[in-house]
Amino acid sequence: MKAIRFDGTLNYVQDAPLPKREGETLVRVLLAGICNTDLEIVKGYAGFRGIPGHEFVGRVEESEDRALTGRRVVGEINAGCNRCDLCRAGDSRHCPERTVLGIHGRDGAFAEFLSLPARNLIEVPDSISDEEAVFVEPLAAACRILEQVSIDTSSRVAVIGDGKLAQLIVRALAGTGCRLTLIGKHEEKLELAKRAGAHAAMVGMKFEDKFDTVIESSGSASGLDFALDMVRPRGTVVLKSTHHKATPLDTSRAVVNEITIVGSRCGRFQPAINLLAGRNVDVRPLISDCMSIEDGLEAFSKAAAPNSLKVLLRVNDS
Amino acid sequence: MKAIRFDGTLNYVQDAPLPKREGETLVRVLLAGICNTDLEIVKGYAGFRGIPGHEFVGRVEESEDRALTGRRVVGEINAGCNRCDLCRAGDSRHCPERTVLGIHGRDGAFAEFLSLPARNLIEVPDSISDEEAVFVEPLAAACRILEQVSIDTSSRVAVIGDGKLAQLIVRALAGTGCRLTLIGKHEEKLELAKRAGAHAAMVGMKFEDKFDTVIESSGSASGLDFALDMVRPRGTVVLKSTHHKATPLDTSRAVVNEITIVGSRCGRFQPAINLLAGRNVDVRPLISDCMSIEDGLEAFSKAAAPNSLKVLLRVNDS
Repeated sequence: MKAIRFDGTLNYVQDAPLPKREGETLVRVLLAGICNTDLEIVKGYAGFRGIPGHEFVGRVEESEDRALTGRRVVGEINAGCNRCDLCRAGDSRHCPERTVLGIHGRDGAFAEFLSLPARNLIEVPDSISDEEAVFVEPLAAACRILEQVSIDTSSRVAVIGDGKLAQLIVRALAGTGCRLTLIGKHEEKLELAKRAGAHAAMVGMKFEDKFDTVIESSGSASGLDFALDMVRPRGTVVLKSTHHKATPLDTSRAVVNEITIVGSRCGRFQPAINLLAGRNVDVRPLISDCMSIEDGLEAFSKAAAPNSLKVLLRVNDS
Repeated sequence: MKAIRFDGTLNYVQDAPLPKREGETLVRVLLAGICNTDLEIVKGYAGFRGIPGHEFVGRVEESEDRALTGRRVVGEINAGCNRCDLCRAGDSRHCPERTVLGIHGRDGAFAEFLSLPARNLIEVPDSISDEEAVFVEPLAAACRILEQVSIDTSSRVAVIGDGKLAQLIVRALAGTGCRLTLIGKHEEKLELAKRAGAHAAMVGMKFEDKFDTVIESSGSASGLDFALDMVRPRGTVVLKSTHHKATPLDTSRAVVNEITIVGSRCGRFQPAINLLAGRNVDVRPLISDCMSIEDGLEAFSKAAAPNSLKVLLRVNDS
């Protein structure tokens, strides 16, 4: 099958073997999205080798769960062992034996087909288009913040970064009614945040007050230090970015100001599906480009460009 | 008056001026304790110049609050502006205009006299000796953790470090009934932790399970990275140490495992006084030495030695 592979270098291949895994479901990928984690992977993050890609919408090709066959689905990317305490408590996202689609020990979505356990797949309602459904995974990651940090109408919240994840976070948080400010570097991306209901400010702008919660989603190693500048004493910094590099942290600042730093990763899919199905969040303005998988290398280049937001790969027709 | 001063180098002086501050209370220092923060200050931490020292018990020499005069007191080290929102909410520990005794903008306790606002002073019950009272400030800092993190009998808690602060943390937490393990490098300090009711383990020992909460109080820049090794997914790391150096942090580990990192600093004095007065905590085995202020430089050297715990300075007779 056609696929984009990373083996130290990124390549488009036509002869990748079908990803058959005992007892799992085979999914024909329709659309896949390029995430910052994918861009970090090709810089060496997580030491991954194989087919990257973890944001997708697809159609079930073959499954032991007969009811799934032919259904249009999105998929939870963490495949747990299904036996440990965490998996049995429903949290396979932190199973120590887990594989992660296109990130750790499991080929991903930049291919004609992918394999996942049937329990990882969720059917997409007809009211959500392919172009929207491919955002379920990153939007779920944005919604995850609301399960970890208490945010309400009185909260002053800053989102650092203006890229795809930052834009989704703004959209996931807008419904709380909090006082939301996105801080970024690109005029047109600030405009997008404003259209989603946030205030927006260029990096370097001075603020009279510090923020209760600062969400670091810049994808830059210096973002955490900047977040510590912006947060009030006893406030919260949420870390959403994964980098390949270690970040120098003056831990004394976190101690003296008693800052809480919350690592935040994947979220449950259902809240994200609800936001999209209810038309509470419009992700379509975040699509920069949609390219064929054959042009995958060019798509990666485009996704890495500073003015870019989400670049989608069209893998199969719907 | 006699004092230990830091002006780029540490010196014993006999002619320091009396610390008179308008409207404040003058305290004759009886005993003062040397803390790791003091050792960091003489390495450059916080850019402090002047008389360090923030752990003390003293007797009120002169105060506008007549009832205080002659009383034996300990003192909250943060002196807020008394006007801002934080101060008015009772949290002058985070007032942006605050001075901090012997740490920031205010001479400290390694001197015959110190000055603090009357509202910072708390009388010490007779049942608490001078040698115990001098531990109120650091024990309050240890107790602070219990206001920030939920710890109960089911919690698996590791304390990293076996120095004075780590030992106080073990003693402050023992009352929760949590499953408590101190991880350190010095056999005799591990023994002290065991006598306080904790398990104790040498660094390098393998543990079958990760910990729910890991408290970094090693005073070492590598402690945070080690803490991230020891904590379970979605667990909590508490940062208690302040260093002069930035710490390299692989933030991706905190993100992927969704770790919460909690900066923790000063605490309210009353819980610490209660623990000492109720004989729930015995701090006396933590005293390595008690030396005269004239021997303050030697006392600093002793406090920095690896086998040392708390070194006290006797400043005035009780």
